[in-house]
Parts: sequence; C-alpha cells; structure tokens
Amino acid sequence: MPQIEQWAIFEQAFAGPTEGNPFVDVTLTARFSYKHRVVETDGFYDGNGTYRIRCMPDTPGEWTYITQSNVTALDSLTGSFTCTAPAATNHGPVGVHKTYHFAYADSTPYIQFGTTCYVWNHQGAAREQQTLATLKTAPFNKLRMCVFPKDYVYNQHEPEFYPFVGEPLTDWDFTRFDPAYFQHLEKLIGALRDLNIEADIILFHPYDRWGFSQMDAAADDRYLRYVVARLAPFRNVWWSMANEFDVMRAKTEADWDRFFRIVQESDPYQHLRSVHNCYTWYDHNKPWVTHASVQAYDVEHTDQWRERYRKPIVIDECRYEGNVPSMWGNITAQDMTRLFWEGTLRGGYVGHGETYLHPDDVLWWSHGGELHGASPARIAFLREIVGDLPLADYTPIASTAIIEPWHDYACLRRADDHFLVYFGRQQPGQAQFKLPESHAYRVTLIDTWAMTHTTLPDTYAGSFTLDLPGQPYIACSIEKI
Amino acid sequence: MPQIEQWAIFEQAFAGPTEGNPFVDVTLTARFSYKHRVVETDGFYDGNGTYRIRCMPDTPGEWTYITQSNVTALDSLTGSFTCTAPAATNHGPVGVHKTYHFAYADSTPYIQFGTTCYVWNHQGAAREQQTLATLKTAPFNKLRMCVFPKDYVYNQHEPEFYPFVGEPLTDWDFTRFDPAYFQHLEKLIGALRDLNIEADIILFHPYDRWGFSQMDAAADDRYLRYVVARLAPFRNVWWSMANEFDVMRAKTEADWDRFFRIVQESDPYQHLRSVHNCYTWYDHNKPWVTHASVQAYDVEHTDQWRERYRKPIVIDECRYEGNVPSMWGNITAQDMTRLFWEGTLRGGYVGHGETYLHPDDVLWWSHGGELHGASPARIAFLREIVGDLPLADYTPIASTAIIEPWHDYACLRRADDHFLVYFGRQQPGQAQFKLPESHAYRVTLIDTWAMTHTTLPDTYAGSFTLDLPGQPYIACSIEKI
Repeated sequence: MPQIEQWAIFEQAFAGPTEGNPFVDVTLTARFSYKHRVVETDGFYDGNGTYRIRCMPDTPGEWTYITQSNVTALDSLTGSFTCTAPAATNHGPVGVHKTYHFAYADSTPYIQFGTTCYVWNHQGAAREQQTLATLKTAPFNKLRMCVFPKDYVYNQHEPEFYPFVGEPLTDWDFTRFDPAYFQHLEKLIGALRDLNIEADIILFHPYDRWGFSQMDAAADDRYLRYVVARLAPFRNVWWSMANEFDVMRAKTEADWDRFFRIVQESDPYQHLRSVHNCYTWYDHNKPWVTHASVQAYDVEHTDQWRERYRKPIVIDECRYEGNVPSMWGNITAQDMTRLFWEGTLRGGYVGHGETYLHPDDVLWWSHGGELHGASPARIAFLREIVGDLPLADYTPIASTAIIEPWHDYACLRRADDHFLVYFGRQQPGQAQFKLPESHAYRVTLIDTWAMTHTTLPDTYAGSFTLDLPGQPYIACSIEKI
Repeated sequence: MPQIEQWAIFEQAFAGPTEGNPFVDVTLTARFSYKHRVVETDGFYDGNGTYRIRCMPDTPGEWTYITQSNVTALDSLTGSFTCTAPAATNHGPVGVHKTYHFAYADSTPYIQFGTTCYVWNHQGAAREQQTLATLKTAPFNKLRMCVFPKDYVYNQHEPEFYPFVGEPLTDWDFTRFDPAYFQHLEKLIGALRDLNIEADIILFHPYDRWGFSQMDAAADDRYLRYVVARLAPFRNVWWSMANEFDVMRAKTEADWDRFFRIVQESDPYQHLRSVHNCYTWYDHNKPWVTHASVQAYDVEHTDQWRERYRKPIVIDECRYEGNVPSMWGNITAQDMTRLFWEGTLRGGYVGHGETYLHPDDVLWWSHGGELHGASPARIAFLREIVGDLPLADYTPIASTAIIEPWHDYACLRRADDHFLVYFGRQQPGQAQFKLPESHAYRVTLIDTWAMTHTTLPDTYAGSFTLDLPGQPYIACSIEKI
C-alpha cells in the first residue's frame, strides 16, 4: 500500500478516453475515506488519455477511495493508501488563527513574511532555479504568483507555455487546457512547498494581451474548477481571486462573489481565500473571505482595518523597494523596512516586493531572479525578533497607553508581559514611559535599520524617561523580567 | 512737520487723565486724512497719563489728523505729517494676491517661509538678541509668536512681564493692561520688521496657568481692541486668533467668530487674519478669514485644501524638526525639508519649527535662541530656487499630466513655460516625461538634501525618459528655452 506523508499529495492516475473533449465530456470525482469521514474531491484530465485524482490526507492512518465518473472505465475504481506522520518541517496548510492571525494545521504559528514574484513561472528554467536559490536564503515564507502570464511594463515576452490550446492570441479553445502548463505550475508550487513557502495563487489579473482576463463566465468557472482540482491538494496553496480585481473591467462584483463561492465549494481543504485590490477594496466582510489582502501604503491604519473586518490583515502590496518610474515601485529600502515594522506592530502582516531597473528587465517583483535591495536583510532581522513570538496573543494598542504625551507610534502589547514600540520615521531623543508599577521590565533598544539590539543594564517599572538614539527607525522591546 | 516713511508708524502722544481707570473710562480715536480719504483709528492709553494715536500711512503726501475723545483734554486735537516714499526694503504690509498667494502692498510677491518661536518675547533680553541674530541669517520671512506667556512642557518659568496688572496668578485686573508688557512686545515686532520678517501674532492660546485663556467675553474683547489699537500700525503684523483654538475649552465657535469680527472691524489696515487648529479645523471659508492657517502633516493634500477654501494655504505647523518625545516635535531634518518642498509644490506655504532637546530647555520652537537643525539650510536652498518665482502664476497639477505612468508627485506648472516636480521620499531611477512637443526644454536636476542642482546639457521636448539619481529628495525643474 502506498505510504503518503500527512498533508502531502496522494495521487492516482487512470487511463481513460481521449476522443471528444475530455475536459468537458468526462466527469471524474473521488470520495476519499478515513474511517467514517469522507472527503469529496474533483479529479481532472491531464492529457494523453491520463486522468488523475488527488488527495491531501490530514490524518495518519488507512485511507481508501472510490471514483465516480460518467465514463465506465473511470467509474467505481477503488484503492487505498496509508497516511504517515508528517516530517518535522511539514506543519500542514495554513489557516486563520485567533481572528487576526494564522497558524499551520498542527497549531504552529505562521507569521507571514510575504514577497511577490508575479510571473516567475514564465521566465524559463534557469531563472526559476535562480529564484528558488534566492528564496532559499531569503526571509520570506509566502510568495504571490499568477497562474496566467502577464502583459505589463518590463513583461512583454511571450511565455513558454499557455494555459489553453488553440491559436495563441487569435483563437484559443477555452474548453481545452494545456496540461503541460499546469504540470509546470505544480512543479514550482511543489518547489516552494519544499522551501516551506506558501504559494498565494493569483487566479485572475488584468495585465493581459491574450484574452485570459476577458473570458466568458462558463470559461472562467471551468478554469477555476480545473485549477482548484489540480492545486488544492498542495498544502502550501492560498487562493487570491485576483490581483487588482477592481481594474478588471470585464468583471463585476457578482463575478468575484461567484468565483469565491466556486473556489470555496470546490476546495476540500478550504485553503485561505482573499482578493487583492488596486484602488477599491473588496468587501472583506463577505463570509467567503478568510483574510483581507490589501494594497495600501497607509499601513498605520492596519489596526483600524482589523476592527473593520475582524479577520487577518495582509498588506500584500504597500509599494515596492526599487527605482522604476511609478510610485508603487520606487520606495527606499528604509521605507520598505518601515512598512514591515509599522504593519506588523499595528497587528497586520506585510508583503515585500522589489522593482529595481535592470539591464535585462529582470525585476524580482515579476520575474524573480536575484534580490538587489537592502530591505530583505532588515525583514530577516524583523523576522528574527517577532517570528517566534506568539503574535496571536499580542494586541495593537494606542502607544499613548504606555508612553506620554501625544504620538501615535505602532505598538503591540501582550498583557503586562511584553510591549513592542516602533518609532518609525520619527526620531525621539526620549520617551516617557508609564508602565505598570507592579512589575520590573527589561528594555531592549532595537535599531531596525542598522540591525542591532542593545539590552539596557537597568530594570524599569512605572513612569520613567528613557533616552533614545534620536534617529529614525528605532524600536523598543520591553519585557517583564 | 514730521516726516514718516510710507508704511512706517506715525505716532503722537498726548497727556491725559490718570484718575479712575483710563483703559476703560477714556475713549480716544483719531481720524487720519489724506486728501478726501479718512482712516479711522483707535488710540490707546500707554500708562503714566500718556495717550497715543498711531497711523500707518499708505500714501506719500500730506496727512492730517483730528482726535475724538470723551475727555476734553484729548478731544479735537489736530496735527499733520508728511508721508515720504518707502525705503528700498520696505514693501508695505502683506496681503492676499491672486486667490492662493501673497504679495506686499507694493505688489512685490511675498513667498512665505515661516518659522515659529512661540514665546521668544518672554525669554529675557539676551535671548531675544540671540534670536534676532539667528533670524538675521536664517531663511525665514515670517515668525509665529504669542502675545500671552506660555505654560507647557519646557516652558515653566514665570515671564518677566504680565499683560495685566493685579496679583499674578490669583487676582488679575483684566480691565487694566500693563503698558510695559505691550511696549516690550512692540519693540520685538519692530525688530522683526527691520529684518523684513512678518510677525504672525497669536492672540490666544491654550497653554496657560495664568487664566488668560479663560477670561470672560468683556475681557477678551477689550484685550483684542487694545492689542489691535497698538499693533495694527506695524506693517509686518498678521493676526492669528489662536494657536490650537480647538483645544481651548472655555471658548465656543461663536467666540472665535466674534474675535475675527472684532479684529476685522478694529484694524484700519486689514492685516491678514486666520486661526490655527490642533485637531479640528476652523471653517476657513468664513468671510473674515483671509487665508487658511493649518496644522497638518499630510501636506500632500494642500492642493485639495486650496480647492476647499479658495484662499492661500499656510501649513504653519506640519511637525517640527527635533527629538522631543512627542510626535509633533521629532521629525528628521529630511522630513522637515520634504514637507517644505511638498507643500510648496502643491501650491501652499509651509512653516518650520525646531524642537531639539536642550540642556537648558531652550528650544527654538518656543524660546528662540539658536538653530541646531539641518533643515534651515535646505529651506534656504528652496527659497533660492522658488523665492523669486512669480508663484502666483504657477498651478499645482497632477504629475501624471507630464509624467507617465502612475504616481502622485508634487508638481507645479506655469503654462507650458516651467514645470517643477518633486519626487519626495520616492527614489525613481527614471521618469518618463510627456511635455508639449512644440517647445524645447532645459532640465535641471535638484538634490534638495545635498543642495545641488545640475542643468543637463541636452534639450528636451515631447516624450522622453530621463535618468534620475534613484535617491529620495530629488526635484526637477523643466524650463522652456
């Protein structure tokens, strides 16, 4: 009997018909069972007469399956496998934890440090390998990427693969997928999984010259079901309905609602679901949205967005470190770092991107490749500091609750045990703290740009004035002794 | 016959009664006439039996006056003087020019570069002289200052003078002014005038332990009329009804409206009038407001405020360069400089302040003294660049009108003749201009922090890509050849 690690993928291939259009003519589903529990899954046609069913088992033990199909050769096929304990680095898929946070299925906290390489999957094998090598030592544990190729500034070349068959650019057959396209995509998602990086899969986007952003509803829905059937068994998948959904003129709000529902009803594992905006935010209060994925530069409002949605806030795009002409892509490394600290200490999770002009137009934000900026090292430093904290036990508070007099510094509090304050661009030479009188505290000054931390020799309690470096980008960690 | 320079002060003293309370018992006004024109002015009691009338003549030639009083000894007194042409550096009082701008009475543009020393008039003679010496070489042409002393952090000592007589802190006689207090104030306003610095006189403020912020309406109004009678003849006076009027709990909106009307009806010269907010803005659309004086950090919205009020926008307080604990007083020199560029190129006028911690609590923002920060040199550099431009002919525009693709850089345009763009904290390595095809332009790159400008050797027209330094704080001047 096959042995499948928990939260890995069990897959079974079957030979079936090739005549007609197997993508639309043949139905294939499978019921996977563990004891009395049944997991209903969609199979899919993978070309060349091969049909596949997949399952991501979530419980160790004996699993069985039985198929259903409108084709006799594929119907009522049965099998079984043994689900084994996960490897030490495999914590399962990520879900929402304590309203505003994330955790892996095994309860390990997941502190999101995202980055973006929109179409690294369309840059050829050498660049893909380079991207994976970069990610291996980068501080990121989530990557946003598109299914469809991208037509945009610095992104003009034709991709190696297309998702549909037909005449490129003139006469696609949206009823026939090209399995090679999706096999390639799966290979890369698997490679990310093996680096413990979540893949935030962007299902639609507006940067398009091929017509993939303007398919009709039947094609959209068929595409969504096909992608979910193939990719949902990857434990590291998140679903983003779109990038900048609000600038996709061919779609209405009803379309986005329907897409969410299709993904929700098709995904047996209920991976995280959101949608990313350009100008106008989607209503993340809708029940099928698991977390808010937002584009916003004013991350100092993250705590307000938490109140508004009562869900995790992921600022996937708050501008990118770089020097391209557009304002979304020419912030300094200092500012990218600031946005991470500010967003994190306001109770959210921030995403990185990098858009430095490159002689061959290889920009990390879209192509992957190498990182050139100075913020990733600082993001790694932030991750060292907060990455192992139980952030779900921390609450963003008004900094005036612990510091006099007027200001609005990003500030996290864990009961009376631990306070984290970030002074951002401001350069106070002093802070006048008013901590609980009843405890003694140890204070660590953190230079978030120089990446140093200095624990002060004294202990502190109640009201006291602390000398600060009088430079921007300083944070302060105050821990109960 | 006395000779008085145009826009200087003609003053005549008269001996009068000392019995009773001359401040309330004696009325004294004077009609100054030039040909058939009459300027009605209020006289005032200056103590020791001395009464004074003043006039700021605005037209060269022969002027006469006649007094009116309820006291025979002061009534129907007449006299005359000759108003002579102004000195080269005397351009008269500042007024509104072309809706959003300022100009002196002789039509010379006045490009406001403000600073703040709230109570430099209460720091003793040595500090006052030091402040004046500093101002002599500083880039500022306006200074905000309070009439009343200030009780606030770093401002706890008793002032040398009080505006009223009586028992300090316990039993003021709000019906009797102390002339020495106002003589001292006038001396300093005159010293500012002699440095060509406008004095933005703050009539009320909330930082008070003496009760001056909580007088009754009769005392408030009497005070206003007395101050206006004394100070209005100074050509460099502006009226600010208050600093942070909205945190003065004893006053209502009706009070502020009344104060404006009293100043408006009492000031023969109609000096500029506004009021400065903390959180809530006064309605600067009200007819007696000549310009909006605002406290705001988001100066990138200046162009929107212009549309809202259709008046000049003066961002008197957008936080101060310094390192005090409060966020309003611990921005970097880079940020202070940025706020000047941003506000100016959005069509407004910005104010400086400095709040560096000091061993003797001498902070420029309140005490004057010396400047320690790095922004004044940069403000001087900005003033070099825009101080002689006819800014009233420039309009803030969306930067996308002349640069592709998406961004929101501060940008001023003078027809097709001159464009000024400021990239702020962003660090574009390129800008894709789309200028008129019909003209040739010369491009100057300006490093607003390093204070350098480099005129490029080429000429440009229409659409072109310009390489930029890829650093923050860069501006660009594009002039038709």
